[in-house]
Amino acid sequence: MDQPVTREWMQRTFEATKNWGRWGAEDERGALHFVTSRKRAAAAALARDGVAVSCARDLPVEASIENPSPALHHMLVAGDAADSVMPGVGATMDFIGVAFHGMATSHLDALCHVAVDGRIYNGFPVSEVRSTGARRSSVMVIADGIVSRGVLLDVPRLRGVDWLEPGERIAPDELERAETAQRVRVEEGDVLLVGTGRDARRGAQGPWDPVAVGLAGLDARCIPWLHERRIAVLGSDGVSDALPGAGIEGWPIPVHQCCLVAMGVPLLDNLALAELARACAERGRYEFLFLAAPLRVPGGTGSPLNPIAVF
Amino acid sequence: MDQPVTREWMQRTFEATKNWGRWGAEDERGALHFVTSRKRAAAAALARDGVAVSCARDLPVEASIENPSPALHHMLVAGDAADSVMPGVGATMDFIGVAFHGMATSHLDALCHVAVDGRIYNGFPVSEVRSTGARRSSVMVIADGIVSRGVLLDVPRLRGVDWLEPGERIAPDELERAETAQRVRVEEGDVLLVGTGRDARRGAQGPWDPVAVGLAGLDARCIPWLHERRIAVLGSDGVSDALPGAGIEGWPIPVHQCCLVAMGVPLLDNLALAELARACAERGRYEFLFLAAPLRVPGGTGSPLNPIAVF
Amino acid sequence: MDQPVTREWMQRTFEATKNWGRWGAEDERGALHFVTSRKRAAAAALARDGVAVSCARDLPVEASIENPSPALHHMLVAGDAADSVMPGVGATMDFIGVAFHGMATSHLDALCHVAVDGRIYNGFPVSEVRSTGARRSSVMVIADGIVSRGVLLDVPRLRGVDWLEPGERIAPDELERAETAQRVRVEEGDVLLVGTGRDARRGAQGPWDPVAVGLAGLDARCIPWLHERRIAVLGSDGVSDALPGAGIEGWPIPVHQCCLVAMGVPLLDNLALAELARACAERGRYEFLFLAAPLRVPGGTGSPLNPIAVF
Amino acid sequence: MDQPVTREWMQRTFEATKNWGRWGAEDERGALHFVTSRKRAAAAALARDGVAVSCARDLPVEASIENPSPALHHMLVAGDAADSVMPGVGATMDFIGVAFHGMATSHLDALCHVAVDGRIYNGFPVSEVRSTGARRSSVMVIADGIVSRGVLLDVPRLRGVDWLEPGERIAPDELERAETAQRVRVEEGDVLLVGTGRDARRGAQGPWDPVAVGLAGLDARCIPWLHERRIAVLGSDGVSDALPGAGIEGWPIPVHQCCLVAMGVPLLDNLALAELARACAERGRYEFLFLAAPLRVPGGTGSPLNPIAVF
Repeated sequence: MDQPVTREWMQRTFEATKNWGRWGAEDERGALHFVTSRKRAAAAALARDGVAVSCARDLPVEASIENPSPALHHMLVAGDAADSVMPGVGATMDFIGVAFHGMATSHLDALCHVAVDGRIYNGFPVSEVRSTGARRSSVMVIADGIVSRGVLLDVPRLRGVDWLEPGERIAPDELERAETAQRVRVEEGDVLLVGTGRDARRGAQGPWDPVAVGLAGLDARCIPWLHERRIAVLGSDGVSDALPGAGIEGWPIPVHQCCLVAMGVPLLDNLALAELARACAERGRYEFLFLAAPLRVPGGTGSPLNPIAVF
Repeated sequence: MDQPVTREWMQRTFEATKNWGRWGAEDERGALHFVTSRKRAAAAALARDGVAVSCARDLPVEASIENPSPALHHMLVAGDAADSVMPGVGATMDFIGVAFHGMATSHLDALCHVAVDGRIYNGFPVSEVRSTGARRSSVMVIADGIVSRGVLLDVPRLRGVDWLEPGERIAPDELERAETAQRVRVEEGDVLLVGTGRDARRGAQGPWDPVAVGLAGLDARCIPWLHERRIAVLGSDGVSDALPGAGIEGWPIPVHQCCLVAMGVPLLDNLALAELARACAERGRYEFLFLAAPLRVPGGTGSPLNPIAVF
Repeated sequence: MDQPVTREWMQRTFEATKNWGRWGAEDERGALHFVTSRKRAAAAALARDGVAVSCARDLPVEASIENPSPALHHMLVAGDAADSVMPGVGATMDFIGVAFHGMATSHLDALCHVAVDGRIYNGFPVSEVRSTGARRSSVMVIADGIVSRGVLLDVPRLRGVDWLEPGERIAPDELERAETAQRVRVEEGDVLLVGTGRDARRGAQGPWDPVAVGLAGLDARCIPWLHERRIAVLGSDGVSDALPGAGIEGWPIPVHQCCLVAMGVPLLDNLALAELARACAERGRYEFLFLAAPLRVPGGTGSPLNPIAVF
Repeated sequence: MDQPVTREWMQRTFEATKNWGRWGAEDERGALHFVTSRKRAAAAALARDGVAVSCARDLPVEASIENPSPALHHMLVAGDAADSVMPGVGATMDFIGVAFHGMATSHLDALCHVAVDGRIYNGFPVSEVRSTGARRSSVMVIADGIVSRGVLLDVPRLRGVDWLEPGERIAPDELERAETAQRVRVEEGDVLLVGTGRDARRGAQGPWDPVAVGLAGLDARCIPWLHERRIAVLGSDGVSDALPGAGIEGWPIPVHQCCLVAMGVPLLDNLALAELARACAERGRYEFLFLAAPLRVPGGTGSPLNPIAVF
């Protein structure tokens, strides 16, 4: 971590990690190309214990300081009127609504979610994301789901703490030390999940405002490392970026900017990783079959979802 | 199919297929108990080709005759205002809202979705499903997802047609003949998917009103068979029940009623199975790793989702 | 009605009825300037019987052929859980959601709702209506409501029919004959309501698809007349425009285009005017105090509402 | 204010102010019966200046401490896609969604909104308010709007302060002193608006949490006075009740409980009264024509709205 992150460094790094054109001028799939059939089959072979673990938080229907726009869960027909739907049988129904790109909803960011200098991944203008939906790199590109090898790097465990404090930054060498400690190596096509202990802190101290107070995450210096390793997807119990940003003008969320826009790596934000970390620690195994299936939303910029790890 | 389906037969069948108390008086999990770790691990071993196929339809955001309550997909910030979210970087965002228990949304029915004589699975009163959410057998029971062996029985293929007509009924012997023809056997803990060719008909003739015109599905006589085979989950490109019902008073949707309420078998409705059928036919293989992960909605009666089959 | 409506005629009429600049280059209020304090006071003096009549349809929460995107009315807390809100007292609550610019919701069109050649009223570019809200001529301009003299012209009554058929056009001379028959004259600052008997037809024959089948409305030749009379607001039980349009390229909804964009006259669409027509006929009086108060939605393009006539 | 408010006093007051049966056993209209045609006509005569003033706050689409469930305002089509709606003309559209019974939305409480001992106004069981909508005393009872004489009692002005502090209580003698000071008398059928300066405090100090910190409002001892004066509707810039409540078991919001349930007086909560107070003070006139028109929501428990005062 000797080299300071400057605006110039960010610009160079953005250019250096660009996968634009790598899979053709019309490509909207980005780093998901790293997930081959062979990769998926190898990932499935990891599910030898047959134990499934959810990596999502509950849909945040209650307002809280970390969640200024709560999701809507409305019962349309409850037990009191269950007989009103059809004659002779009771039925209950509900409605779900969610502005999922918040700080408390487990969600997928499609590649069209972020733009740098007016461009999304592969150089398409952000104006392609219209008020009626995205015409490029929408979540529909990921309609067949993400099925690959998942790897959890559990940073609080490496540091011997319960959680990282808001704003703390994880350096690339720390990712490598976590690999060594956990006897696992992040490889091409992996879904890399980085745990910061957010749930543990929330359990102990209650929720906090991620914008005002911050979130632990990756230092921008991890970006070249993520690129070298050719990960397909990056996820975190935070938002992968450390908040607040490092104060580099134009680069408030460098991991989002470089992953989504330069590399074409979709992100999984606000996951629940405590249970997963326990399952890994129990087994001394930090690799697993990972599955995430966004809703098929034409023109969508992402999706709420419930990723599942299978050991 | 000699024996006529009468009201008495339905009542006897409902009683005969009840799993109430089988896993304890407080059980809310039902037939998902049939999915053991061993089952999951064996299912994962089926994913040897590493090919993933979505089994969901696109979220139905356009009104259509099969879809009177279209889902909401609202862009919150499009490219025209992408620079308004945070300084120096563009972001686009959207909102999804859906009353998912319709006839055009791929969704999971949790066990609390249907009641018979005022009772849901395991005898809990339907009044436990309150206007503020279900307190018993909500979708949260399935929060770790459904990971098991999936089996597709492709009935149009067996019959040598492109699709079954609305209202056509599938008899239990036909399920067995499909097993034979496809060289597959439905076993304990399986996710059974029954294809009726709905997508093919829709592609050829356009959408139709499933309530007024009907849907192909299982004859009520399949219910004992489903129980014997100890399936964990039942899904279809229709709603598993044939519509319109057989006119038996009190039993308009007998498959829903017996699966959800008696057996505790959750349902997957309105799947997209055309692509899956092609993938199976290509391989001459009708079994695969099946994954479905509902959103974690506290108190929810189900969830929209995007199930994935992996070959 | 001798002169044919051509593209050139429409363009000339658009130019001729433009109020752009009339109230200054920054004006967003348009013809509402015609409603002076004096006008409002005179209108109030019409409310001498003290009888109030709603001019709105019920919020269309049921899907129907005229209403492909039904409004949402979701109970959040019903009687079954009324005691869950606060200790010792019962409370029930609900949620309303509506995409109000449909063909079945009584609503106000703010001036930013329609653009001609990329311009809204007074020449502002339509790009001022951003995905995050309108920055010009939003419904907030009308936040203090519309309080003026209302005049109903009851065209079916003039013609001696119960309703006009879909697609039928009303000519300007017919408006004048209605004035004569009803002994009323449309004047500066009035809210002009034109009845076509839509509710009566719906009551007799059921709903129909306004886009495919059409709606009765004003012929484009009425536009200069509306301009001469200096009306402030135009409303109808249809959408003021006759549908389908007359087939003039670029002018599918000429009344909307000229009222909203050229004149700056906001519109009230899909009103319920049957009750109002009865109240007028009973009294032989077609003028009344008219009140319409949109919700205060910053950046909104209009609002659902419930206008009230007081006799 | 000598007599202490006890649980017994509340129970006696509830009984003493009951209008149950007063207008028949099936009545759902309650104190709106006090608004006669004569009353409306007399109210209209007050609109002699022709000046209209909105009494509503902007729809609270931003999360804030007073507003944990922000309203939804979603652009469906913005200027960037205005040409996608129909050929040749631009159109922009939006969606509004609101859980209006919050502490930051100007709204009407219909009589079914609150229950005491399981009963709503006129003794109907609260179970009549079903998860599919209210079957008694819904907002549809008020579909023709509220048109009557409005009277503002400006308590901060009486006290010579800018605002009342959260939790401060207004006694009935203070209402009478405000009447004297303002030379106005609250009469049968009036819409009584009580100003507490909430907007002024918010302007000066920012928003606060009305539940945790409180709101100024009427002391429970005002309830008999409201009943004697036979008001039709009660409104406030707060919620009429002082928060937190006086700690009487079972009576957390006594004004809501007695007005809605006993008297059948609908309430208007969270109004914006600063502009109205200025308009009154300017004229030395605290009476005006008052108009409030809820959306016509079948089965609704109230409505967001924008009431208008006309001087």
